[in-house]
Amino acid sequence: MKVRILVSLKNSVLDPQGQAVKNALLTLGYDSVKDVRQGKVFELELEGISHDDAERIIPEISDKVLANPIIEKFSWQILEKD
Amino acid sequence: MKVRILVSLKNSVLDPQGQAVKNALLTLGYDSVKDVRQGKVFELELEGISHDDAERIIPEISDKVLANPIIEKFSWQILEKD
Repeated sequence: MKVRILVSLKNSVLDPQGQAVKNALLTLGYDSVKDVRQGKVFELELEGISHDDAERIIPEISDKVLANPIIEKFSWQILEKD
Repeated sequence: MKVRILVSLKNSVLDPQGQAVKNALLTLGYDSVKDVRQGKVFELELEGISHDDAERIIPEISDKVLANPIIEKFSWQILEKD
């Protein structure tokens, strides 16, 4: 089973990396760029696990290991079932 | 218009960050984790731009600024039209 987990800063948290990218794009003349937020993406390959168990452990993994729940939020989707 | 761009290492490139996350998860007892790949996600807010122009500049921005095309690949999707 292939799972994609997106981790990004909460909207209320400043994102200096995203701001740096935005400034770089504006300097290059991409004037249509109004905002940039940067985050992390994790693609996990899981084996020997039921769909129900996956739905239980993915948020657990995200909350405990991949994201810092104080300042970050996460979302996830199953890309491939097997 | 809101656009999400995913940047990740090409499959042929070693991913030490992903390996570190995998090892952390195995140590915590998540034995079903067979592989982890880590990448970056960018969410761009674009304004005053047509759909066609967006389809032209998004790959350009990704290739020139967000990703290093030697070792990274990218994919993108439009999340919200306006």
